[in-house]
Amino acid sequence: MMKFVAEINIMPQKALLDPQGKAVSSNLKNIGLESCSNVRIGKHITMEVMAMDDNEAKVLVKQACEKLLINPVMEAFEFSLVRPQ
Amino acid sequence: MMKFVAEINIMPQKALLDPQGKAVSSNLKNIGLESCSNVRIGKHITMEVMAMDDNEAKVLVKQACEKLLINPVMEAFEFSLVRPQ
Repeated sequence: MMKFVAEINIMPQKALLDPQGKAVSSNLKNIGLESCSNVRIGKHITMEVMAMDDNEAKVLVKQACEKLLINPVMEAFEFSLVRPQ
Repeated sequence: MMKFVAEINIMPQKALLDPQGKAVSSNLKNIGLESCSNVRIGKHITMEVMAMDDNEAKVLVKQACEKLLINPVMEAFEFSLVRPQ
């Protein structure tokens, strides 16, 4: 078995409004950072995965996302796997 | 002016417990994904930044994080900048 670390990003679907992001965008303007805009806020999740190989690790992370971590109506996810040295 | 996109990860400080992550870890075990563990949950934020160059963009993102986005007692952040084509 090998240990992998998964870095998962979960973002609101592009078609959806992101009210939290909109609030942060306007607050950034209010504090003088008007160069920053179009803020979107999602989740960043790290987890350790024990698997025989890269492929099995991918399947496990995908299952964890689809069964527990994301709401597919509202959110999309992407992830990368690294092997810590 | 050039447009950059910042990808910011905000995670709970390593020394802190992450109760949300702990809850997800035990739920993963309950649904048969015991290969996944040590879940930590933070935020992933994307935003557009208008700046003269890479350095100015970095300063702006750092300011946005420190002034608005993160709570330094609880959270640490890292970010990368890309130039969309």
